[in-house]
Amino acid sequence: MEITEEKLNILITNDDGVKSKGISALIDMMRPYGDITVVAPFEAMSGMSAALTIGKPLRLTELKSEEGLKIFACSGTPADCVKMAMNQLFSSNPPHLLVSGINHGSNASVASLYSGTLGAAAEGTVYGIPSVGFSLSSHHRDADFSASIHYGKIIIDQYLKNPPKPEIFLNVNFPDKPLNSIKGIKFCHQGKGQWIKEFEERTDPYGFHYYWMTGEFFNLEPDNRESDHNLVEDGYISIVPHKIDTTDYSEVERLSGLWEL
Amino acid sequence: MEITEEKLNILITNDDGVKSKGISALIDMMRPYGDITVVAPFEAMSGMSAALTIGKPLRLTELKSEEGLKIFACSGTPADCVKMAMNQLFSSNPPHLLVSGINHGSNASVASLYSGTLGAAAEGTVYGIPSVGFSLSSHHRDADFSASIHYGKIIIDQYLKNPPKPEIFLNVNFPDKPLNSIKGIKFCHQGKGQWIKEFEERTDPYGFHYYWMTGEFFNLEPDNRESDHNLVEDGYISIVPHKIDTTDYSEVERLSGLWEL
Repeated sequence: MEITEEKLNILITNDDGVKSKGISALIDMMRPYGDITVVAPFEAMSGMSAALTIGKPLRLTELKSEEGLKIFACSGTPADCVKMAMNQLFSSNPPHLLVSGINHGSNASVASLYSGTLGAAAEGTVYGIPSVGFSLSSHHRDADFSASIHYGKIIIDQYLKNPPKPEIFLNVNFPDKPLNSIKGIKFCHQGKGQWIKEFEERTDPYGFHYYWMTGEFFNLEPDNRESDHNLVEDGYISIVPHKIDTTDYSEVERLSGLWEL
Repeated sequence: MEITEEKLNILITNDDGVKSKGISALIDMMRPYGDITVVAPFEAMSGMSAALTIGKPLRLTELKSEEGLKIFACSGTPADCVKMAMNQLFSSNPPHLLVSGINHGSNASVASLYSGTLGAAAEGTVYGIPSVGFSLSSHHRDADFSASIHYGKIIIDQYLKNPPKPEIFLNVNFPDKPLNSIKGIKFCHQGKGQWIKEFEERTDPYGFHYYWMTGEFFNLEPDNRESDHNLVEDGYISIVPHKIDTTDYSEVERLSGLWEL
């Protein structure tokens, strides 16, 4: 299932919003591969997972249309952006590839569950579109994406030669390092981790409490240096193939035998 | 790892909001098992997946406190509700069980990706809490949950005797049928499907387009009668064990061998 087109139709989205530096980096990275359609959120939509907007109408606004590059902003979530693109812009001719990002901040380990960048990649996969999420381990709004662009092209080249199985999307995480200090690229598994100390409590002028989500990442497998989180920490680029079908088939088997139903 | 407490501490949440009929049904179902703390969204949060509220403060309001039952409303998503409960209410003494639902509408097949009911169950699993999402295949706000409550207790009894592995949450879907026409309970896999014809376009009074998410479910494996969607359609209660680690380990192996990195 090698993707053999000379010139690809590429859908780009993200969760940091259409004006983020990361999505501009991704557009630069992908322009050599073909024609680009961007459909990205108007505003930052970090932490939106695969959320959809139900019960509230959506808007879609064209921001730019030039040779090989169209940019739209959508009022919804990253997954809404993919649905909007697929229904309103690509209805008869699906894109060859969906790339999401480049996210400002790591989406390794449990962040993959909450990530809007990956929610969009999951949505692309549901449509049968080969989909990849890219993230850089820096939350800085002016982060340096040059090494990500360099290695991102190497990853896309390999992807096009040997794509993953359908129903798989890739989660690529770049360490926040200059080109020559990145140690390599490794396939690996989603690390085990969770967030702790998640809220900061404040009191409003009327005496009521409210809470800001903050938190610290807690690594639940610090000794397994082959998890995505640990590889990125050690200076590698991590690639995790994630499944859409998250059934644990061994548990279907085991629990079927144990439960009296 | 049998759960042997005489009286459990149970956390309940949902995505239809704290006032829905489905969460009242779940409270009724779970009261015989122990003390209940409800933390559920103020408003409907369907389709919120595992989304978190970042960049906007959260509120937590106590609505009821009686012997064995406390009810709080949270201004965030279902996953926020779980985080809020774990950080603010259960910080030193985690609940024995998290149950989410009973959702108004099926969460079988690809709906499991978007479901806030299951986003909350996933969040509970990240905290190491045994977690189950329950859904009834009816969107009616006054749906009949009596058969769900009956069979839900059978499922909870079996769960407590033989829990799934940690890092697994269960997705239980009830058919919208009276007690005596339900054919049985089966463990099974997440069905393959997607939504089609997803938006209805309208024009606002100023001449601009906007879009309502609607859509129809399209079954991608109609002939496999052992998928969750098809079992529910055929009158069974489906139980899918879902993983938090969604790595495809066979693809890690295969792609590592193929890609030139």
